[in-house]
Amino acid sequence: VVNKNGAVIASAVTNLDLHDISRAAVTYGAKSLYVVTPLADQKTLVERLITHWTQGAGAIYNPARRKALQLVRVREDLEAVVEDIRRRSDRPLRPKTVVTSAKKRARAIGYHAFRRMLAEGQPYILMLGTAWGLAEELIEVADYTLAPISGPSDYNHLSVRSAASIILDRVMGNRDIA
Amino acid sequence: VVNKNGAVIASAVTNLDLHDISRAAVTYGAKSLYVVTPLADQKTLVERLITHWTQGAGAIYNPARRKALQLVRVREDLEAVVEDIRRRSDRPLRPKTVVTSAKKRARAIGYHAFRRMLAEGQPYILMLGTAWGLAEELIEVADYTLAPISGPSDYNHLSVRSAASIILDRVMGNRDIA
Repeated sequence: VVNKNGAVIASAVTNLDLHDISRAAVTYGAKSLYVVTPLADQKTLVERLITHWTQGAGAIYNPARRKALQLVRVREDLEAVVEDIRRRSDRPLRPKTVVTSAKKRARAIGYHAFRRMLAEGQPYILMLGTAWGLAEELIEVADYTLAPISGPSDYNHLSVRSAASIILDRVMGNRDIA
Repeated sequence: VVNKNGAVIASAVTNLDLHDISRAAVTYGAKSLYVVTPLADQKTLVERLITHWTQGAGAIYNPARRKALQLVRVREDLEAVVEDIRRRSDRPLRPKTVVTSAKKRARAIGYHAFRRMLAEGQPYILMLGTAWGLAEELIEVADYTLAPISGPSDYNHLSVRSAASIILDRVMGNRDIA
C-alpha cells in the first residue's frame, strides 16, 4: 500500500479490519478474507488473534465472531493468495484480480458488471488497501479496476472497513428489498 | 442499547465508530453524526477526540478527517438530539426517527421507500445501536423501522460501522453506476 506521501509501505494490521471485514464477508458469502502482509510480526499477530476467536476463549464467548474469523487467512504476498485459492478450488482456475481505488480511473468496471461476473461462478480476488490505498504497481497488473464508491458529495475518504462492506453489499447484497 | 444478555446498558464509545461513520456520513451527505451517551466520561472523551481532529494537531495532519469529525455532536439522550435538529433547522419540524435492527420486524420499511422519503427533504434521524443493538423501548416508540440488511447468508452480525456504511450507501448512494 502507499502512505500519505505516496511511498510504498507495509502497513500495520488493524484488529477491527479483521473483525469488521470478516463479518461482512460471511454476511455476503465471500469464501475467504486474506490478509496480505510481508511483515513476520504482523502475520504472527493476526494468527494469534484468529486462534483466540476460533479456538480460544473468544470462540466460546462469541460464536458469531468465530464463524467470521474462520474465513481469515494470512499470506505474505498476492501470489501466495492466488496459489492458495487455486489449491483449494475443485477447478484449477487462476482467480482474476479486481482492485479498488478511491480515484476515478480509465476502463474501470461498474458494480452491476462485477455482480454479473461473480454470478458466473469464476473465482475473483477483490483487493482493498489499508493506509492510503493499494500501490500503483498492483493496480497496473490487476485484471480489473472497480469504479470508486460515490455518494452525493465528492468526499472519497471512506475507511477500508466501510469500503469493503459497501462493495460487498453492492455486488453480493440482496437487491430485491422494496 | 442492550448487551449480550439483553439487558439495557450504556456502551462505551469506540474511537473507530466516530471515524468510520463520520467519514461515511460526509460521503453520503448526512448533516450530522450524533453520538448519544448518558455517561459523562464518555461525553468528555468524545469531545476531546473531536477537538483533536477538528482544531488540534489532527486537523493539520489530516484535513479529510477534520471534515468528517466536524459532523460529530455528542448528546445525552434522543430528546436532546431532536431538540438540536429542530433548533438548527430553518423549518421547525420535529425529525422522524428510523430505527435499525438485525432482526426482521413487522411493518419494517425497505431501502427504496426510505430513499424516497429522504428525497422529499424532511429531517430524519437514522438510529443505530452499538453493543447488541438498540433497546426495545427505543424501537417501540420510533416512527419507522428499517428492514435488516441481508446478503445471501442468514448471518446478521455486521459491525455498526459496516451497517451504517451500507445503509447510507443504499439510501443516499449513487445508484446509477453501470
